Amino acid sequence: MSSDSHSAIEKLISRVDELESRASLRDLVTDYCQGFDNHNWDQFISIWHEDAVWEIGPPFGTFYGHDGIRQAVFDVLYPAWRETHHLTSNLRLEFDGPDRAHGVCNVDCMGATVDDIVQMISATYSDDFERREGVWKIAKRHVVIHYFNPIPAAVMSPPG
Amino acid sequence: MSSDSHSAIEKLISRVDELESRASLRDLVTDYCQGFDNHNWDQFISIWHEDAVWEIGPPFGTFYGHDGIRQAVFDVLYPAWRETHHLTSNLRLEFDGPDRAHGVCNVDCMGATVDDIVQMISATYSDDFERREGVWKIAKRHVVIHYFNPIPAAVMSPPG
Amino acid sequence: MSSDSHSAIEKLISRVDELESRASLRDLVTDYCQGFDNHNWDQFISIWHEDAVWEIGPPFGTFYGHDGIRQAVFDVLYPAWRETHHLTSNLRLEFDGPDRAHGVCNVDCMGATVDDIVQMISATYSDDFERREGVWKIAKRHVVIHYFNPIPAAVMSPPG
Repeated sequence: MSSDSHSAIEKLISRVDELESRASLRDLVTDYCQGFDNHNWDQFISIWHEDAVWEIGPPFGTFYGHDGIRQAVFDVLYPAWRETHHLTSNLRLEFDGPDRAHGVCNVDCMGATVDDIVQMISATYSDDFERREGVWKIAKRHVVIHYFNPIPAAVMSPPG
Repeated sequence: MSSDSHSAIEKLISRVDELESRASLRDLVTDYCQGFDNHNWDQFISIWHEDAVWEIGPPFGTFYGHDGIRQAVFDVLYPAWRETHHLTSNLRLEFDGPDRAHGVCNVDCMGATVDDIVQMISATYSDDFERREGVWKIAKRHVVIHYFNPIPAAVMSPPG
Repeated sequence: MSSDSHSAIEKLISRVDELESRASLRDLVTDYCQGFDNHNWDQFISIWHEDAVWEIGPPFGTFYGHDGIRQAVFDVLYPAWRETHHLTSNLRLEFDGPDRAHGVCNVDCMGATVDDIVQMISATYSDDFERREGVWKIAKRHVVIHYFNPIPAAVMSPPG
């Protein structure tokens, strides 16, 4: 291979790698929603590094590592909601080298509590992503909940 | 071209092809929403292979091929809604070779019936995509509707 | 570099450039939402070319250039809303050469007026994007608002 051809190909590989990383990071953000809403634990836990930190904030708190995340999901969140429907939007990614990135996305979540109250929730997730041994996962997710209110008199049910 | 340069370029072409396919599949999912909501039949029907299957599920049923899809749209869905606003989120793609892919996305749809009832709808679409003669389209779309309820006392109207 | 290797690499560079442009255009659409909702003026104004046109339509009007956009934001929109939460979906991009593109996206916006009325808003944004001196920005954004209505009796507040 000539050296200029080699150099041009190396540059392209690096650009394609970032584009593929963008797709992988988008998948993580999606797997959070689909894994949580479908109660698919394998899908949900696969997005977090073993030592990940999940700062859900008031009134829920901060959870550390896979054990803490499991506790948040099964002891705190699933007991409160009968069903949830998370929608991710506006994912904004910034790279800090090939193996670290920061993301900010907005999330709309409709849900029903175990007491049948229909809730509308809006939040922003700020994520630190790291690629370790070739695999992108979340190292830290910080949550800010903007609102969390009932839709008065609404019911949530599948079509008959 | 040297053989190692050739091989490096071939690998890159394959990676770029998958990234372009991701964009094309995202376009199909978008054209479904925009084609349906804008009553743009050419845009809407262009996303389906001639023999596509659309499993909308209860209470609507399953529709086969372009003729069945036309029937679903013009005889079943448009007569029920005065307007619809579909938003796609969380598109999760998995490839099975260069010409087949599976996608799962979540959809929020706000709409008003012909009787002026404002509805909030949530669904998951599971899609089998196939690239035939170089063109990606949907071979099968399976729908699960999670909820389908009025927003009590709400009105839907443009400003001014 | 051999001429066929050169030609293959040139073609790949052009394809990767379009994929990167897609990511850049998606970022512009995202920065609109996050810049506006977070009152981050630097982020918000960075998406518009100096001579950009923002056709918000009735009842707001059309605004020209950075000065007009500043007026729309600070004199018209922020005084009306206590908070807004824009979610972009269905971004459909079409390129007209390497430096011009057109996009259509759908936007769901939940907000609360300064009088504490919770509003649900749906709109479509049609954007003319131009890359000037290597930087993609919006040259014109045309807005169609589909609905703009209160959610009766709803409150919007963060969790206690």
